[in-house]
Amino acid sequence: MRTHYCGLVDETLIDQTVSLCGWADTRRDHGGVIFIDLRDHEGLVQVVVQPDNNTAFAAAEAVRYEFCLRVTGTVRARPSSQVNDKLATGKIEVVVDQIEILNAAAPLPFMLHETPGEETRLRYRYLDIRRPQMQQTLRMRTRLTQTIRRFLDARGFQDIETPILTKATPEGARDYLVPSRVHPGEFYALPQSPQLFKQLLMMAGMDRYYQIARCFRDEDLRSDRQPEFTQLDMEFAFANERDIQDLVEDMIRQVFKEVVNVELDAEFPRITYAEAIRRFGSDKPDLRIPLELVDVAEHVRHVEFKVFSAPASDASGRVVALRLPKGAELSRKYIDDLAPYVARYGAKGLAWIRVDDLSKGREGLTSPIVKFLDDRAVEGIFTAVGAQTGDVIFFGAGNYKTVSDYMGALRLKIGKDNGHIEKSWSPLWVVDFPMFEYDEQSRRYMALHHPFTAPSIDDAADLRANAANAVSRGYDMVLNGNEIGGGSIRIHRSDVQSAVFDLLGISSEEAEAKFGFLLEALKYGCPPHGGIAFGIDRIAALMSGTDSIRDVIAFPKTASAQCLLMAAPSAVPEVQLQELHVRVVKPVKANS
Amino acid sequence: MRTHYCGLVDETLIDQTVSLCGWADTRRDHGGVIFIDLRDHEGLVQVVVQPDNNTAFAAAEAVRYEFCLRVTGTVRARPSSQVNDKLATGKIEVVVDQIEILNAAAPLPFMLHETPGEETRLRYRYLDIRRPQMQQTLRMRTRLTQTIRRFLDARGFQDIETPILTKATPEGARDYLVPSRVHPGEFYALPQSPQLFKQLLMMAGMDRYYQIARCFRDEDLRSDRQPEFTQLDMEFAFANERDIQDLVEDMIRQVFKEVVNVELDAEFPRITYAEAIRRFGSDKPDLRIPLELVDVAEHVRHVEFKVFSAPASDASGRVVALRLPKGAELSRKYIDDLAPYVARYGAKGLAWIRVDDLSKGREGLTSPIVKFLDDRAVEGIFTAVGAQTGDVIFFGAGNYKTVSDYMGALRLKIGKDNGHIEKSWSPLWVVDFPMFEYDEQSRRYMALHHPFTAPSIDDAADLRANAANAVSRGYDMVLNGNEIGGGSIRIHRSDVQSAVFDLLGISSEEAEAKFGFLLEALKYGCPPHGGIAFGIDRIAALMSGTDSIRDVIAFPKTASAQCLLMAAPSAVPEVQLQELHVRVVKPVKANS
Repeated sequence: MRTHYCGLVDETLIDQTVSLCGWADTRRDHGGVIFIDLRDHEGLVQVVVQPDNNTAFAAAEAVRYEFCLRVTGTVRARPSSQVNDKLATGKIEVVVDQIEILNAAAPLPFMLHETPGEETRLRYRYLDIRRPQMQQTLRMRTRLTQTIRRFLDARGFQDIETPILTKATPEGARDYLVPSRVHPGEFYALPQSPQLFKQLLMMAGMDRYYQIARCFRDEDLRSDRQPEFTQLDMEFAFANERDIQDLVEDMIRQVFKEVVNVELDAEFPRITYAEAIRRFGSDKPDLRIPLELVDVAEHVRHVEFKVFSAPASDASGRVVALRLPKGAELSRKYIDDLAPYVARYGAKGLAWIRVDDLSKGREGLTSPIVKFLDDRAVEGIFTAVGAQTGDVIFFGAGNYKTVSDYMGALRLKIGKDNGHIEKSWSPLWVVDFPMFEYDEQSRRYMALHHPFTAPSIDDAADLRANAANAVSRGYDMVLNGNEIGGGSIRIHRSDVQSAVFDLLGISSEEAEAKFGFLLEALKYGCPPHGGIAFGIDRIAALMSGTDSIRDVIAFPKTASAQCLLMAAPSAVPEVQLQELHVRVVKPVKANS
Repeated sequence: MRTHYCGLVDETLIDQTVSLCGWADTRRDHGGVIFIDLRDHEGLVQVVVQPDNNTAFAAAEAVRYEFCLRVTGTVRARPSSQVNDKLATGKIEVVVDQIEILNAAAPLPFMLHETPGEETRLRYRYLDIRRPQMQQTLRMRTRLTQTIRRFLDARGFQDIETPILTKATPEGARDYLVPSRVHPGEFYALPQSPQLFKQLLMMAGMDRYYQIARCFRDEDLRSDRQPEFTQLDMEFAFANERDIQDLVEDMIRQVFKEVVNVELDAEFPRITYAEAIRRFGSDKPDLRIPLELVDVAEHVRHVEFKVFSAPASDASGRVVALRLPKGAELSRKYIDDLAPYVARYGAKGLAWIRVDDLSKGREGLTSPIVKFLDDRAVEGIFTAVGAQTGDVIFFGAGNYKTVSDYMGALRLKIGKDNGHIEKSWSPLWVVDFPMFEYDEQSRRYMALHHPFTAPSIDDAADLRANAANAVSRGYDMVLNGNEIGGGSIRIHRSDVQSAVFDLLGISSEEAEAKFGFLLEALKYGCPPHGGIAFGIDRIAALMSGTDSIRDVIAFPKTASAQCLLMAAPSAVPEVQLQELHVRVVKPVKANS
């Protein structure tokens, strides 16, 4: 139907006849001549319809926005006055011989030259994706997965598909379930990840596995979550942490280089979980922001001010200072508005000291709380943070985790708000996660990664004795404050796996019911193995510079898990549910 | 952990120290020395443990089948008497310095050197896959998808993921449903194919799309069906049948060449649906079998024998003969057993004539029915089929479709049973399918492909007037009697789509409810487009020479849609169902 793509017609084709297919991006009548910008996936080309070509001119007069056209004509150079340097095809135009309307278009719900509201974009996704920016974003995503695959194919990884209809997992509450027609009362679960299958593949002798796998999680959606998402899932037999990290670090470097021409660090820095929380208040620190949390408990342990001194003396407490250079230039309103911001992360208030003039001692400070601190405390803090005239110093005090959380959030906010971002791409590894996190509410250990993560203690009895301090063999890759990948060395011995289930409060009956097959598989010479998974949607979003993963997914769902285009989910006929042996039980409304 | 793979140790490494990881395939004690065949994904190597190495020897003595080991030792040439030419590593062996038991193995449920029953294989899939044959099959499948992707990547196809949680489709009865937690009483459906999404992508200007996509169909399983299966899904904008067929034919040729070193025909033959049914009784004819159905209605229209003469005179009837050369050598039992065989396909009996000696006229024939045929009929038939001494000629008579079905099945059976298979690979295109099939039971038209397939009549009014004879723009790729791919040019105009829905008895309300988004999308300049989908599981099975697609799927389900390894589907806690607003309603048992 066509000889060339619109966006690729160039001066080498001058005087040649071309056939093009595409959409009418614009139509202009100018001096009795009709100009149409014809657009396809490669770009735009200007098409000129002369009034002396009666048939074509009549057709062109009928053309409206987004009519689908086939055009045959001759390429010619534009007059120099009309050359458009911003357009790849701006030096030429196509003088129309024939124009065929392949399909008309009704008046559009929005103009493609604008970016409408997201609801409109998702409702008319087939028009939204015609916009060049979406075309480029989705094509970039193709290049991303292509590059990943080429890298892994060259290194002996087997691309193996694992089931979507599978068994409910331990975090079952977040499973999407699928009723079985053949087995009344039974359900499949959609996988939250192929975790167990990839471990089974290692037990099956597959050596190196990868899959670009769809995963599902039925949880309340935040802006960056989707009910279904895509992960690059990998697993290695007979490998240790460093083997895995080195290979995937090379992969990420190559991918960024090839897809978006970004050179990442030759070696990604490594920091421990403890250090990440201590310095950045986050296990996914954004290292582009040079601000750091500084522990000041030792300087305030003696003061009367209980807000500081109590946590300073408590083993589970924390008192930190965060120095914002040039913070003194900020409005009082900006500073006051930070208190409700950190409150969202659990802060009860936000103490601060503004250093108007360091040389004037206390006279030179503005602060709601400095009156509660003696000189020794103030001097100790100032020395610790390296205070200078013009700074504002913020304080967090209370429970170690809560303080770290909200001061970490504050660090990100004041860093980004005030231009404290040093370079564009800042990857790192976070390692040495605690094996378990003690949950005060349920009074039991929780797995910080998942319950198949190997502890650094390789002996089951040792592990039971030292669970609280056990470090896991997990690792996360973080980029610009986003956890883009996470993995671990897995448990490959059944006694260690049983011990971990025990420590997590999973009874042996429960473990048998849920993971009996895994415990059994571990008995038959399971190799040491480990792996990692990367969030493809997040990496694609970072690469294309968008905050929303919805921009890198062709047909995403809304925050309430709906597809606005097809209107899913939807009601289904009763007879169909009968076949599946289920009945709808609608929740009782609160006001009925 | 290792310096080399077991299966790749060779003479270039003699006198070098190597570290190897793998499984004990066998262990033999011979003359006070222990020999272990150590196996990894690349193959086997013989490892020798001398008694003077006390520590290693003690470890080696503990080794049983499938122990997971790490071995360090020195490569040496085997004595010439012990060279094993059948083994890639058969010229060398590794003299052990150190042996580390990475993991023990309990006594195995089956010996890996045997192929146990399928239930055992699926229950212990992680052991089954350790068998070299399964390793090779799954690695071949990786090469298959790699080769496809490379081919398509080089031709500008965009690899775009479409949703798994989507809307119920017209063939809704076969949908797997997923209850929504957020929207009580509503359900997602798992896609039977990405059909509508790929059409929407063309409307969205994506030009060329592909995806290796998971699809789901909840139907009663036959040996070659799985509840979830994988298809290579493709769509092209601004393309006609030939553009699409030529490209994918090249792809299939390249894939067979690269993956299994098979040269397929330089151009695949094309036959129409009508011709396929007429000559082979099947729309997916196996052209390796040279036997053909021959219509003989004209020769039997006049006979008294109503079984033949009635359908011979009926426009919807058919009388065919199928000549089996050398069939006279077959036992009477074999021939008699064919009647119940064809009965499964709807035959009420199976008439036949054995040509013991053509020169003897009727005397030379054996047949239960020849007495009902006059000489003119017999001669007419014999000439039509080219009868020779030694043949058996089988007859089918009755409804056109039924006769074609069972005689097509008979053709396959007697061809395969009696060695009438000419060459190994026989691809072809079947084209010009009827647009609609009239279903006598529901007294309405059914779509032979799917309701988005374009008719060859491009005018809505014309189509309505000539529905019964309309030919679709669909096409199937058939290989050795398997439909490996099927596609069509799609409807790109909303008036034609509405007409097709009408003819299929889909009311405008129903069309609006199910496909409102599609009808709307067609209004905005939808381009002409078409595509195809290939069954990856089937192609992989054909390539690896297995009849069962379960052999090319890492974790397949049984014929009753169960995963024997993980025991899915399974019951789930009531509280979890409450969250999803459904309740189980078990079927009432017949005997209660």
